[in-house]
Amino acid sequence: MQFELTTIYVNKFKDSIEQKNNSAIKDQLHELYPADIAEILNQLSAKEAAYVYELLDDETAPEVLLELDEDKREDLLANFSTKEIAEQIDNMDSDDAADVISELPEEIQDEVLSQMEDIEQASDIAELINFEEGTAGSLMAKELVSVYSFETVTACIEEIRRQTENVDVMYAVYVLDNNEKLIGMLSLKKLIISHPLARVEEIYDADVQFVKTSTSSEEVAEFMQKYDLVVLPVVDQLGRLVGRITIDDVVDVIKEAAEESIQRMSGISDDVDSNDKLWRSSRARIPWLIVGMCGGIVGSRIIGTYEDQIKIHPEMAYFIPLIGAMGGNVGVQSSSIIVQALANNSLINDSIGHKLLKELGVGLINGLICSILILGYAFLIEDWRLAATVSVALLTVVLCASFLGTFVPLTMNRFKINPALATGPFVTTLNDIIGISIYFLVGRLLYGLF
Amino acid sequence: MQFELTTIYVNKFKDSIEQKNNSAIKDQLHELYPADIAEILNQLSAKEAAYVYELLDDETAPEVLLELDEDKREDLLANFSTKEIAEQIDNMDSDDAADVISELPEEIQDEVLSQMEDIEQASDIAELINFEEGTAGSLMAKELVSVYSFETVTACIEEIRRQTENVDVMYAVYVLDNNEKLIGMLSLKKLIISHPLARVEEIYDADVQFVKTSTSSEEVAEFMQKYDLVVLPVVDQLGRLVGRITIDDVVDVIKEAAEESIQRMSGISDDVDSNDKLWRSSRARIPWLIVGMCGGIVGSRIIGTYEDQIKIHPEMAYFIPLIGAMGGNVGVQSSSIIVQALANNSLINDSIGHKLLKELGVGLINGLICSILILGYAFLIEDWRLAATVSVALLTVVLCASFLGTFVPLTMNRFKINPALATGPFVTTLNDIIGISIYFLVGRLLYGLF
Repeated sequence: MQFELTTIYVNKFKDSIEQKNNSAIKDQLHELYPADIAEILNQLSAKEAAYVYELLDDETAPEVLLELDEDKREDLLANFSTKEIAEQIDNMDSDDAADVISELPEEIQDEVLSQMEDIEQASDIAELINFEEGTAGSLMAKELVSVYSFETVTACIEEIRRQTENVDVMYAVYVLDNNEKLIGMLSLKKLIISHPLARVEEIYDADVQFVKTSTSSEEVAEFMQKYDLVVLPVVDQLGRLVGRITIDDVVDVIKEAAEESIQRMSGISDDVDSNDKLWRSSRARIPWLIVGMCGGIVGSRIIGTYEDQIKIHPEMAYFIPLIGAMGGNVGVQSSSIIVQALANNSLINDSIGHKLLKELGVGLINGLICSILILGYAFLIEDWRLAATVSVALLTVVLCASFLGTFVPLTMNRFKINPALATGPFVTTLNDIIGISIYFLVGRLLYGLF
Repeated sequence: MQFELTTIYVNKFKDSIEQKNNSAIKDQLHELYPADIAEILNQLSAKEAAYVYELLDDETAPEVLLELDEDKREDLLANFSTKEIAEQIDNMDSDDAADVISELPEEIQDEVLSQMEDIEQASDIAELINFEEGTAGSLMAKELVSVYSFETVTACIEEIRRQTENVDVMYAVYVLDNNEKLIGMLSLKKLIISHPLARVEEIYDADVQFVKTSTSSEEVAEFMQKYDLVVLPVVDQLGRLVGRITIDDVVDVIKEAAEESIQRMSGISDDVDSNDKLWRSSRARIPWLIVGMCGGIVGSRIIGTYEDQIKIHPEMAYFIPLIGAMGGNVGVQSSSIIVQALANNSLINDSIGHKLLKELGVGLINGLICSILILGYAFLIEDWRLAATVSVALLTVVLCASFLGTFVPLTMNRFKINPALATGPFVTTLNDIIGISIYFLVGRLLYGLF
């Protein structure tokens, strides 16, 4: 059912372009949805993409434009005059149009807007591009259906009929007072069963949930998920209805947040993807590598202070990687659970103390299992002093890592730093250093003791 | 705007319950949405929650039930007779009702269904609970608006009016042929502007996207996101329309998939959250800890073979953690980029070879930066042989880790194993072992050379 793009398909397509076989190209595109066409265009060179785009009909072209990768869209629009760009965005939804316009250089933005035929659309877009990225204002669209509370049911149905021409799916009818303030919602069912001369104010539902234009995208996403909303009206500072956000726009916010979390956890500091340029990928990764390296240097200094011990007991060095790895693994496990709990707001009733205790409990169980296993192994293979050292150190390290893995993200969250940063290289590096310190300290104590 | 639950609020609430101050409880609940009430109930004991639930009105109670944590809902329903459960689910949407029912023990399920007043709803639910979890069938709801192609516009509007009584938001009107087969969609606009005696078959749009009941949830999520769909019809083996999936149900699928990825990356094998029981948390984490420990033991055997060298040059041991950590970090960075690209299907045109080359390029740049830095440091602090060893080993390890971080998830994906597993402890452990081998090998060569 779903279109699947293969390298063979793309190569065939490129051949058709080279041969300027327009009818073959059109035939192929005709069967596809805009998202599929965009997928093909993303795989073509800028020149090839522009060639194919010219062949698209007026209805499909803007939809394909929207679905393109940002870089590809930029390349494509660079070939167009401001007049042509204006034509492309004239029929888009206002939020999509605003997204496209805001990617253009600023001097071009005004020119494009002034060339648009639909003046209302142009002023909607001009309003939308002014909202800061990552706010409800930047997510919302202007297309919505609203009625005044003083209207009659008959006038209202006429008005709705007129307004729905601009709206694809009708999610809700919003009710405004004389000052354009949002005061409630109206269900279609209510409208149909009510007396034609009844006024909206007698039949509307005053219980309406909304956000402000300045609310952050993350809050909007949380809000809509929590209350299972399909659409959410947006009001300005004065409570006037200015737009609406639909759940499909929020899906992108949710996906981006999840991807960002995973990248922070993996020690990647910018938002990159696998198609980015080499130097951009490098730059996004190097900071955490250097942090890790500094951690390694600190570790080397610590081990350095035990030089004499290593000379006599070189076997102490054998288990350095094991201790480091276990500290890192346990730390990552604990912190990822905490980071997710923070993201889901499910930590409400648990004080930090309670959470720490629980993670320490899990750490104790798993630490005991691991240290008993390693005790048995090391006792059989190495000598009993080393076995005791590794085992005691491992238990201590696991407990420590559980503590830090819980404490660090909770603390970062309190100071408004993204706790996902804590789940990655930071906690790993910290636990590496602490693990080695504990290991050699325990070693010195036990070897000295016996 | 959003209700915020605090420990103080919960404690106050518990006091009201203890004093059986029903009017105070009702007053407080009256101001809240079902999702907020569920949030409070989640923080109460089973007994307290049951007490509060009894005070809810008939309309709110089922909605609160739906929003509860699974454990809490189970506790609560255990107090109810099958008749009472049947009453609760009589007014739910069919997909929600099916979710609740399928959590009940099997012998109770049939009894509840047989006690339901709404026979149609009961048979819808009975149908839905039979679909395998993780398929389109288990995600879909039965509430939808459909018309036959042979109907006239007038009959159609009447039919839609009748059907919308069961539907909250009207997303789409589906068009069926005589055999209940889905053949297209009808826009409301078209319906309004068409002649009353026109037939549906003359005005409907045959271009409709759909999935089968057996399509996996992940595919449904991908499909709806790619084509920007708000609602997606589901058909059976014979192409008959049996339900529809809305984008808000898919939001949960997307969130769960992202959370699962993060847990697999962190070395947590089951789906757990921070409120789970101690032993369940332990059990989910121990497998990867044991894998990590085995890796550590292999590492100890490798270092063991260099015992003589460590005795003479104990400084070799200093940089074991640095080499291990850097291999791990680079491996995680590479694999997380690949795993995300796989999840987003954005690897289409890049052959594995191309991807490997690019990751090796990034590895080369970052490896060179890091190894030059460490060369300078080690040369100043330690002797030049150690400096050369660490630097050469580090570059090799970074390149190796880039290779493995790319190659392992791509290979796992080819063999249909969740590649997110590769981003976590697996790649880290592998790189630890390889890193140490390289380090000591380089050390032996360089120390022997000079």
